[in-house]
Amino acid sequence: MDPKLADELIATARALADAARAAVLPHFRSDMTAENKAEEGFDPVTVADRAAETAMRAILAERRPDDAILGEEFGVEEGSTGLTWVLDPIDGTRGFIAGTPTWGVLIGVTDGQGPVLGIIDQPYIGERFEGGPGLARMEGPQGAGTLATRAPRPLGEAILFTTFPGVGTEAERLAFEAVSARAKLTRHGMDCYAYALVAAGHVDLVIEAGLNAYDIVAPIAVIEAAGGVVTNWQGGPAHGGGQVLAAANPQIHAEALAILRGQGG
Amino acid sequence: MDPKLADELIATARALADAARAAVLPHFRSDMTAENKAEEGFDPVTVADRAAETAMRAILAERRPDDAILGEEFGVEEGSTGLTWVLDPIDGTRGFIAGTPTWGVLIGVTDGQGPVLGIIDQPYIGERFEGGPGLARMEGPQGAGTLATRAPRPLGEAILFTTFPGVGTEAERLAFEAVSARAKLTRHGMDCYAYALVAAGHVDLVIEAGLNAYDIVAPIAVIEAAGGVVTNWQGGPAHGGGQVLAAANPQIHAEALAILRGQGG
Repeated sequence: MDPKLADELIATARALADAARAAVLPHFRSDMTAENKAEEGFDPVTVADRAAETAMRAILAERRPDDAILGEEFGVEEGSTGLTWVLDPIDGTRGFIAGTPTWGVLIGVTDGQGPVLGIIDQPYIGERFEGGPGLARMEGPQGAGTLATRAPRPLGEAILFTTFPGVGTEAERLAFEAVSARAKLTRHGMDCYAYALVAAGHVDLVIEAGLNAYDIVAPIAVIEAAGGVVTNWQGGPAHGGGQVLAAANPQIHAEALAILRGQGG
Repeated sequence: MDPKLADELIATARALADAARAAVLPHFRSDMTAENKAEEGFDPVTVADRAAETAMRAILAERRPDDAILGEEFGVEEGSTGLTWVLDPIDGTRGFIAGTPTWGVLIGVTDGQGPVLGIIDQPYIGERFEGGPGLARMEGPQGAGTLATRAPRPLGEAILFTTFPGVGTEAERLAFEAVSARAKLTRHGMDCYAYALVAAGHVDLVIEAGLNAYDIVAPIAVIEAAGGVVTNWQGGPAHGGGQVLAAANPQIHAEALAILRGQGG
């Protein structure tokens, strides 16, 4: 990618993340009052979701009016540049509703080939994970740093994250469990935060199913920029959604993929 | 409790939480190198656990030398005041290892009757939840506030947290699932952070089994100070550990307890 375009996309993505933070945070951990329930007819997470996507679309209309947009709340807007902004204003709405700090704002950009830029932002903690052309960076309460995935280690020493139980078919659950049974540690319920932990070098694998494109485009860009590998359960592109296997490195990706395939997952 | 004693205990508990933060944070998300592996023979979480408990015990030796101590790492130290400090330097070690921000430092004080003071501290986020005599307070990235549990609502509208699957017996799991099946939303894997969310008014219930005293004394004090109810699955005291039912209010506590009892849990 042309460096000037890359810089412009990165600056725009950061502006979107800033705007989404400002739109979402007032609604986090704010119980719905009778008044706004009657007025708006939506729960706080829906209000926050729409406010954040609206704010991000307004910035794109000004700065990148010819790019396409795919957003979780307001669908598709066609473009002419070959670039598409893929937006999930609140990934992990159930975690958001429950007050946990592991939901996130997902901002991704795809070209004709796949994801090229991504941000995973956690507004409450004030943590941001960025990956793109020449970019593999995080910042948070302890300062800024470089994203780099973990070095290879056997599955028996690996940490695995998932949203199972609670997503996917029975066959998908069994395939997941075949990998989980051989991992050192399996953790549940972290939403998009699990992908950030792969990019930051703390987790080896994330295995999920039933995803939408807007759930995974940004995580793919962040993890790949940090040295990881993300595919579907057949080893093909994952940016369309569905089954996802995110891995810290090619070696552990291959080990987990062989098990998922062996289960017909 | 005498107000002067209460103030002294609260100030001491905060000093312990500050010291534990300083001891633990350098080890969080720091992969073990070959060098410190050889030198120390422990993983980072064990090193952090011991460093934090050592730091807290040093403060107690100076400020409250006649109180007893029960710590997860270094066991029991007898006292003569009738007060016992109950310390878990890192609750949620598996979450700590995986890099998630939902482990915590637990600091509790019991008298002859039960928990009287507690702090749940999350060092990475910089969040602290405190409950005791005249105290129901939190502070975090968005500032400080008062802790107050949720108003009563039916179980069908309630949010439930647990560490299941992964703890407890088969019978305990079935009893938990009988409650979970009737709740609006069940979330997994948040360690002690789930209790903080009950105290802060975002979650209705936490149901767990197989706990130790140092896992639950501080959460009981924080939740009770915020208006909640914590018992075992028979409705009796929970500060000894084992099965725990933490609830935002007496009404939802009674509804969940009836189901757990009906299952022989």
